[in-house]
Amino acid sequence: MADIPGYTYGTAEVARSPVSLEDLEKLKQTIQFSEEDHEYLRMVGEALSDQTDALFEHWMSLFGPIFMSYFAGPDGTPDERYLGAAHPRFVQWIFDTCNRTYDQDWLNYQHEIGLRHHRTKKNQTDNVDSVPIVHFRYLWAVVYPMSAIRPFLARKDHSDEEVDKMHQAWTKALMLSVILWSHPYVKDGDW
Amino acid sequence: MADIPGYTYGTAEVARSPVSLEDLEKLKQTIQFSEEDHEYLRMVGEALSDQTDALFEHWMSLFGPIFMSYFAGPDGTPDERYLGAAHPRFVQWIFDTCNRTYDQDWLNYQHEIGLRHHRTKKNQTDNVDSVPIVHFRYLWAVVYPMSAIRPFLARKDHSDEEVDKMHQAWTKALMLSVILWSHPYVKDGDW
Repeated sequence: MADIPGYTYGTAEVARSPVSLEDLEKLKQTIQFSEEDHEYLRMVGEALSDQTDALFEHWMSLFGPIFMSYFAGPDGTPDERYLGAAHPRFVQWIFDTCNRTYDQDWLNYQHEIGLRHHRTKKNQTDNVDSVPIVHFRYLWAVVYPMSAIRPFLARKDHSDEEVDKMHQAWTKALMLSVILWSHPYVKDGDW
Repeated sequence: MADIPGYTYGTAEVARSPVSLEDLEKLKQTIQFSEEDHEYLRMVGEALSDQTDALFEHWMSLFGPIFMSYFAGPDGTPDERYLGAAHPRFVQWIFDTCNRTYDQDWLNYQHEIGLRHHRTKKNQTDNVDSVPIVHFRYLWAVVYPMSAIRPFLARKDHSDEEVDKMHQAWTKALMLSVILWSHPYVKDGDW
């Protein structure tokens, strides 16, 4: 993990999240995210471990043009260096979501991910000249297609009920994450 | 419908949404929301038509305290008049989501719903003295529990596959709606 350029999870480079662990706990309760979901997320991580290329291709088949538009360079076409640099962090994010403890480091890094999509820090990590922001509406619009991964979860040796719970845990974790990523987009005091 | 106080859908009292129909169409595509989903939403509306009290009670069992906190009056307890006035609009929203055409009037009313949750217009419709805003994070945190209504959809005479598609259509419609409701919360140019 330490070998991924720009992946600063748990380091002193990551600022403290403006969200408290108490706020995180209340959010988890409202989303119905429990300790059991962490168990099922670990199973999601195992199930996806040898399928990340296929999963990424599937997602691109659903929302590739929008996704790629946010990697556009000055000539309007995707900046291949930017795409290549961001991709391993994207894959790592899947496994962090499945395997990390949702503690202060996790909370801080969710805020960092939000800043890197927002105009506050977009393009800085990879020092690229691209569009200034991933718009809020598309940050959220991809959540549904990114949550609908049941077929990928069902390819392993789990019961239907287990696959349902894995799918639910993944969906809740996505919702929780993107609520945190949204913080830089929201007007002061309204989050 | 015309008898619900404060329900102004399709009237001249509702301002034009800042979101264009073209932007709506792109969002629907990204969320994978299609014409077929409207057919399944109509089935959702039929399935829920005699269950709205039970569904509301179920939702309150999941996130009642947070929900009620946004109806608090000056003494910190829920304002019963406010709750009573908002409830029929809440129920009507379920059926609008299921049965309305997602046209300019629908788009305008989603923005109006956003304004009424945001500090821009909260409390004005019912002329109440309550907390100034429904925070962004809880507007979104209730989306997961509000989407997880498969047991309610499965109580009617539909196949498992139909119930799945009804559930998916409802989930997509919720995501689409709350992206639109979020507009007043997001910094200028970032939505």
